[in-house]
Amino acid sequence: MATGPSPKWDISHANGEGKTASLITVRSVLEKIMKNLNESDTRPVVPLGHGDPSAFPCFRTTRAAEDAIVDAVRSAKFNCYAPTVGIEPARRSIAEHLSCDLPYKLSPDDVYLTAGANHAIEVLVTALARPGANILLPRPGYPLYESRASFSQLEVRHFDLLPEKGWEVDLDSVEALANDRTVAMVVINPGNPCGNVLTLEHMKKIAETARKLGILLIADEVYGHLAFGSNPFVPVGIVEALKSYLNITADPTTFVQGAVTQILNNTTEDFFLKITNTLCKSANICYDRLKEIPCITCPHKAEGSMSTMVKLNLSLLEDISDDMDFCVKLAKEESVVVLPGFVVGLKNWLRVTFSVEPSLLEDGLGRIKAFSLRHAKKK
Amino acid sequence: MATGPSPKWDISHANGEGKTASLITVRSVLEKIMKNLNESDTRPVVPLGHGDPSAFPCFRTTRAAEDAIVDAVRSAKFNCYAPTVGIEPARRSIAEHLSCDLPYKLSPDDVYLTAGANHAIEVLVTALARPGANILLPRPGYPLYESRASFSQLEVRHFDLLPEKGWEVDLDSVEALANDRTVAMVVINPGNPCGNVLTLEHMKKIAETARKLGILLIADEVYGHLAFGSNPFVPVGIVEALKSYLNITADPTTFVQGAVTQILNNTTEDFFLKITNTLCKSANICYDRLKEIPCITCPHKAEGSMSTMVKLNLSLLEDISDDMDFCVKLAKEESVVVLPGFVVGLKNWLRVTFSVEPSLLEDGLGRIKAFSLRHAKKK
Repeated sequence: MATGPSPKWDISHANGEGKTASLITVRSVLEKIMKNLNESDTRPVVPLGHGDPSAFPCFRTTRAAEDAIVDAVRSAKFNCYAPTVGIEPARRSIAEHLSCDLPYKLSPDDVYLTAGANHAIEVLVTALARPGANILLPRPGYPLYESRASFSQLEVRHFDLLPEKGWEVDLDSVEALANDRTVAMVVINPGNPCGNVLTLEHMKKIAETARKLGILLIADEVYGHLAFGSNPFVPVGIVEALKSYLNITADPTTFVQGAVTQILNNTTEDFFLKITNTLCKSANICYDRLKEIPCITCPHKAEGSMSTMVKLNLSLLEDISDDMDFCVKLAKEESVVVLPGFVVGLKNWLRVTFSVEPSLLEDGLGRIKAFSLRHAKKK
Repeated sequence: MATGPSPKWDISHANGEGKTASLITVRSVLEKIMKNLNESDTRPVVPLGHGDPSAFPCFRTTRAAEDAIVDAVRSAKFNCYAPTVGIEPARRSIAEHLSCDLPYKLSPDDVYLTAGANHAIEVLVTALARPGANILLPRPGYPLYESRASFSQLEVRHFDLLPEKGWEVDLDSVEALANDRTVAMVVINPGNPCGNVLTLEHMKKIAETARKLGILLIADEVYGHLAFGSNPFVPVGIVEALKSYLNITADPTTFVQGAVTQILNNTTEDFFLKITNTLCKSANICYDRLKEIPCITCPHKAEGSMSTMVKLNLSLLEDISDDMDFCVKLAKEESVVVLPGFVVGLKNWLRVTFSVEPSLLEDGLGRIKAFSLRHAKKK
């Protein structure tokens, strides 16, 4: 190895996809905010910034799900490569499970297994992308749609969700934005990040609009207990593109797929009821406490999902320049983490996640109030 | 819903990435071949086409790995979202594990967890891609590299592996192919699909060549028990691009990550020894039986991995037009599945996987011999 390295090709700029680095993700912004936490604050950190309730015993998953995973592992039947579309028994169980609430029957072939919901977004957006095409996304929304669309050179057009109408879709703006290059629109219901649940009547209107425009309706129901009313039929062209991309992307862990049937069969309704009750209680606490804070407006109490959107009134605050500044100072002074709204498309709003233990939530909301009063403009 | 659908935008052609549909994958070719299996053949199907030994009891994974997964699930500590780079304890255990065989120490920050090896290839290739760049890939090789490079518009240039030299890298062709737009070369060791293991001396030459050319060396050691000798230092530019892409791609199942430390700590050497002995026995059977078949040449006995490459001499066969034709007729007449070499870059070769129960392997190889003799040209 006498010859030294001769890097003709500057590897540090070799990444044509590097633009993704500049994209905003929930995780990267939260990491930035959490760097401001004050280590000498002895109070517990209140994480109202990201939707991961798994840390709290009251949200622990059901024993039936654990048993199903353990049984799948112990069986040694699922240590193999799975078909890229998912194993048949899991697809069949999911199709049957989803068909319960529908006026028609899904077949296993209608179901594709992905390694989580983010992966499903990746597969869908990639399958739909083509030069010159655009996709209609909600604002506020879930930023991974924007990241993956941008990565696939699929133009993003935003339609608004209307806070004064319970975060309903602004269908006039959908019609104004769509053209003959529009491949799909995304509707997230129950809403992320708004925590709203759309009425059947409004869902019918959305479906009708998509039908009229001749575009695919992507119903993101990752937080769903309500079935979406429109026909989820997906044209063959898309299905082939989905399968094609599934062939060259990550597979979900096979033994987790092997556990799906047992999870669906053995998880009882009271598990979901317990979780829903806890979330409902937390959503009420969240709404009631935030309403007491002068600089914060809550246009709509959350009815689903794990978070809610509230508006900052900066004119009532002394030394806060914007939503990011609010969140950074809140982390620093009160050890409470909240996501600034710009990450999900609404500048100078906040996304407050309420899927934490109710007592910790009360504590955190109290600190937000104290912070807001301390920074209030003197009359 | 009075208005009928008006599909201005033909969704069936909406997929700009649809080119991936035309790409050759091992799975898609095997599926095509397996459609030719004769259902009335009462003999067991012998699957020598793809490398998945999990169906055979002799290759069952260690109890320690099962226990580790079960413990991680039961702990309920790993039901959360993980950092996109992987959880720290798993990264630390892997760094320590890999450092055992190295003259230097890896840190947890050198390790990124992906959802399997295919996902690692996706992340690497995506991070390296930029317009005008090219990557050097081995022929024969692992086709997912080609699929992902093509998907990311990264030009592929093939260097040859030399069967007469134990599938060593043709370093002259590497030097001839590389230019100032070359970002990396891939070396798979132990070889997939050739089953060879490179000598330390040859690996040093490869490292020296990569160093001289100023290109990144991607050492794919997914079948590895031998450590690769060159310095795996990865420049910062690439690391940032990796992290950036990891932010918008699928995550490995968190509780599997949670099990990594225990798997590495509790799996004893005799487990690997048992597996290696079985593979060694199978590789010997494979070589000895295939050597007896006139139309097949085995340039090199497998010394690692789970498959070997053998050459078809079509001039000795009566009614076989190419490797695909050979595999289709073999499936139909003998219920034996083998991968045609064109899928991995060598037209009119075969990739024979030997990671099956030795008795079934003997059976399958006997059928390949009977098939070959039956189709031999009459003298």
